[in-house]
Amino acid sequence: MKLFDVIKQIQPLNKEVMKNVSEYIDNLTKPAGSLGRIEELAIQIAGITGNERPTVKNPAIVICAGDHGIVEEGVSAFPQEVTKLMINNFIQGGAAINVFARQIGAKVTVVDVGVKGEITSDKVVCKKVKHGTNNFLHEDAMTEEEAIRAIETGMEVADELIDAGHELLITGEMGIGNTTASSALIAAYTNEPVEKVVGFGTGLDEIGHRRKIEVIKKALESRQVNKEETLKTFAKVGGLEIGALAGVILQGAARKVPVIVDGLISSAAALVAFELCPTVSEHIIISHQSVEPGQAALFKYLKKKPLLNLDLRLGEGTGAALSYPLVDAACRMVSEMATFSDIGLEKR
Amino acid sequence: MKLFDVIKQIQPLNKEVMKNVSEYIDNLTKPAGSLGRIEELAIQIAGITGNERPTVKNPAIVICAGDHGIVEEGVSAFPQEVTKLMINNFIQGGAAINVFARQIGAKVTVVDVGVKGEITSDKVVCKKVKHGTNNFLHEDAMTEEEAIRAIETGMEVADELIDAGHELLITGEMGIGNTTASSALIAAYTNEPVEKVVGFGTGLDEIGHRRKIEVIKKALESRQVNKEETLKTFAKVGGLEIGALAGVILQGAARKVPVIVDGLISSAAALVAFELCPTVSEHIIISHQSVEPGQAALFKYLKKKPLLNLDLRLGEGTGAALSYPLVDAACRMVSEMATFSDIGLEKR
Repeated sequence: MKLFDVIKQIQPLNKEVMKNVSEYIDNLTKPAGSLGRIEELAIQIAGITGNERPTVKNPAIVICAGDHGIVEEGVSAFPQEVTKLMINNFIQGGAAINVFARQIGAKVTVVDVGVKGEITSDKVVCKKVKHGTNNFLHEDAMTEEEAIRAIETGMEVADELIDAGHELLITGEMGIGNTTASSALIAAYTNEPVEKVVGFGTGLDEIGHRRKIEVIKKALESRQVNKEETLKTFAKVGGLEIGALAGVILQGAARKVPVIVDGLISSAAALVAFELCPTVSEHIIISHQSVEPGQAALFKYLKKKPLLNLDLRLGEGTGAALSYPLVDAACRMVSEMATFSDIGLEKR
Repeated sequence: MKLFDVIKQIQPLNKEVMKNVSEYIDNLTKPAGSLGRIEELAIQIAGITGNERPTVKNPAIVICAGDHGIVEEGVSAFPQEVTKLMINNFIQGGAAINVFARQIGAKVTVVDVGVKGEITSDKVVCKKVKHGTNNFLHEDAMTEEEAIRAIETGMEVADELIDAGHELLITGEMGIGNTTASSALIAAYTNEPVEKVVGFGTGLDEIGHRRKIEVIKKALESRQVNKEETLKTFAKVGGLEIGALAGVILQGAARKVPVIVDGLISSAAALVAFELCPTVSEHIIISHQSVEPGQAALFKYLKKKPLLNLDLRLGEGTGAALSYPLVDAACRMVSEMATFSDIGLEKR
């Protein structure tokens, strides 16, 4: 199966390349370590790519879209139709992610993995697995087969983008209700209490927030999730676009291409990828700490540190796109800076 | 005097424009407030510029350079000659700031405000006030007249850059010993204990760090600084490049041009500007929290919050240049995003 073939290809970071780059960075014309996390990023990207002078040119943003049966329970501040309206906005270039994509020169690919209803535009990659997940309060969100198809969809899209020369991938998503599925996944895999990992999504009030917590609690009980069964757990309470993003992340790691992970939903996808293949955590860059509390629990669990903390809670890939210039800067630092010997100074 | 003429021109932010932009942002196709600090930035820049669709095109980085007599006391990990070597590196394009400047398409202007010895290159703007400050452990770093000339130098450079069409200024600096002057200024103006505002600079060891603290403590006593005498305090323990940067910041505010402030030294310059004209704090963007502890004390005092926290401690303007894409993104968000009515959805 493609899923397990891809996972088998994922290797730990190239430690020798990382050591060489680290030594080289200490010879650049600045006090050792004085570019802090930019230096760490450069070393990580060298390790991911196996390249001592890595580049992250031609970034590609993959926006995976899907709907969620759980919205029937009143867990979102926006109605389900907004998923389709926003997809239309993406292809017309008017959403926040389009603005930030243009700024960084990134291609935006919108993938319909599981939107409810038909999307007719040929500007959307149609990989629909089903018309939205089932309401996971009452039945599994999807079958295990559908879960695997969603993940493999993301793998295929990532594979094509990498073949086309995109040196870095950015995860994004759209799907009304997907913070509920993401929080459920985080609670299921990390064993954190539901209260700790549920936020206000796109703008719930206090009552809506309490309802969201109760729905997830009941769902996790009635679905009888067992985190040892990784794929089954994902199929029970996950989302189609979340699966596809896990696939993007896994394929990026397999192909030695850095992936910048966006907010709560993308982070939940990274968690699914991690549960399937723990090595993947070395390969990802966490772009930002959003205001969603589930993300903090997840970073602790994955032992990852976000680059930005700007009180974002939009998704779409916006936080990841905003962090791309830092990743690019890290690569440019290695390739373009003068060394101490270049300027006639002994290395300290 | 030019200094006081410029200060008189500085106005509070344009509250009406800020209100209009804030309302407009709530109509953009995203949950209200979901771009967090990016939205705050957009509103601030609208208020600074008085423009409801502000832009920050063609950024200019001003690197002010100066030497410090206090290095005789062994307060720096690098020898004084490094100031000149790094200026050479700047004009050859090999320093970190050059790399990040190229990335964001920024012009770099290097200004000699007080380097010890002659700089012969015509690529450096020569505005030398004196050959480095005096050792402020034993005498005032400069006279009040020299202090004013340093500040006015920055004002002149900023004025020319704004006239040339640069819509945003970025502060940077070079000067071995300037974290010592900066920490002394922060302690003097904020009344924080010296121990709390002194860091390891470019790489002091524990002994060097303790020495730096002792030197600053003794100097503040023997100089008898009185924070009510703003200019005198600056002249007693400041630096020529720090004064010039205060001038850049004041002129930016007077001309309604946003200024991104870099690390410890630039923040100390912002503090000097603030002491001369408190309104200036509304006009500046603090790019990042460096590892230098003095900065944290200063942010509390200025009631400002940095955009990034990446463990940087290089200076040159690097942190400010790295944060520029966020500022640019904020402006682009306002100008380029679709509104709810554009996509056929009622505003929530």
